[in-house]
Amino acid sequence: MPNYRLTLCYDGTRYNGWQRQGNTSDTIQEKVEAALSAILAQPVELAGSGRTDAGVHARAQVASFRAKTKLTPEEILSALRGALPGDIGAISLTEAAPRFHARLNCRRKTYVYRIWNSDAPDVFQRRYRLREPRPLDEAAMRAAAAVLCGEHDFTSFCANRRLKKSAVRRVDAIEILRDGDELRLVFTGNGFLYHMVRILTGTLLEVGLHERAPEEMADILEAKDRSRAGKTAPAKGLILHSVEY
Amino acid sequence: MPNYRLTLCYDGTRYNGWQRQGNTSDTIQEKVEAALSAILAQPVELAGSGRTDAGVHARAQVASFRAKTKLTPEEILSALRGALPGDIGAISLTEAAPRFHARLNCRRKTYVYRIWNSDAPDVFQRRYRLREPRPLDEAAMRAAAAVLCGEHDFTSFCANRRLKKSAVRRVDAIEILRDGDELRLVFTGNGFLYHMVRILTGTLLEVGLHERAPEEMADILEAKDRSRAGKTAPAKGLILHSVEY
Repeated sequence: MPNYRLTLCYDGTRYNGWQRQGNTSDTIQEKVEAALSAILAQPVELAGSGRTDAGVHARAQVASFRAKTKLTPEEILSALRGALPGDIGAISLTEAAPRFHARLNCRRKTYVYRIWNSDAPDVFQRRYRLREPRPLDEAAMRAAAAVLCGEHDFTSFCANRRLKKSAVRRVDAIEILRDGDELRLVFTGNGFLYHMVRILTGTLLEVGLHERAPEEMADILEAKDRSRAGKTAPAKGLILHSVEY
Repeated sequence: MPNYRLTLCYDGTRYNGWQRQGNTSDTIQEKVEAALSAILAQPVELAGSGRTDAGVHARAQVASFRAKTKLTPEEILSALRGALPGDIGAISLTEAAPRFHARLNCRRKTYVYRIWNSDAPDVFQRRYRLREPRPLDEAAMRAAAAVLCGEHDFTSFCANRRLKKSAVRRVDAIEILRDGDELRLVFTGNGFLYHMVRILTGTLLEVGLHERAPEEMADILEAKDRSRAGKTAPAKGLILHSVEY
């Protein structure tokens, strides 16, 4: 059966995350699978590059699926655009190499966490940014971020208490970028554990607020204990920016 | 009583416009008046620079009000920010000259109408842009816009059938700006009639789609007949950009 690669964007505000969950229909995967199954008149199962949590957004999530159809990819894309709700968008759909799998072949992902660092109102982007009006010490945040980069056991930054598999991941970069009143934390790595980007962000925010020192980061990693790291930052500021293969 | 000038932004999606309407509470004016009345412990009545329709947004609406209070403008602003819902923001609050009135002293207003001119998804800005995937002839739109600028009787571009006052208004400029896939129509003038910007936009869109010729604009103005102009563009693409005094 031909194999397809689909790139999606979504506003995760009203969804219970990416991943299908039993018989509910409030996940992004279910919405897209239902639309594709109707268009292609066969059950379609998507393999996403990975889950995104409830409330997390995507600029370019990638999923693969197999289907037998006489429709061209352009025709499927056009029908899919017509069928999806306004908060899920189909960016592109192409035929993929026979063995392409969106999760298994993923090499790197980039997540962006957006912070509105001002006490001015943030009416139009309020669903996509965390508000933090207090001043943030970006130099301290960068010093802490530098310690967190590299290959580490990120157990302290994972919400899953019964992790059976390895918690070792490689974080290639954590960039801290300012654009006026917006502070953007850009995480690139070969994989992220459950809640990992949000716990990294929460911890870096505490460093920026001088509630923690950058020097603590090495100890937190070493401890392999979730309770040592900072709070989990809210989902709404997080966006899956891109997936590399 | 001291006089104040308040600048507000709002996402108009879930409101029935700016203007208070009897005993409802789904207008922006009512939300802000209720918050200010509670903060200042007295009935506060706002004079907005003008109404915005249901679903229309504002980047910087201006309103004036009188109140007697020991609170400083900074204290009122801070309390107001805490009291308003996430889709209404208080940008600034200052003491104004005794005779300042946000509607009567308004010299010029700028409205922006945003169009997403692509068949690619528009997930994150979907509440603030009209989608029009068909190609738009910007040169034709500019030619039509040039005819509409200046001082005219805009009866043909007004939804109010029983207009008692003069329908003469001066439109200083209609700029048609492209930024990638977004087309922005920027209207500046000394005043706009009910639905006028949206009917101008709808008519210019029909010109851009070659459903009308730019040459028709002079006849439409001359006819003083609403049925001669184009459709009323949807509210969601329109934003009150700024008010000049």
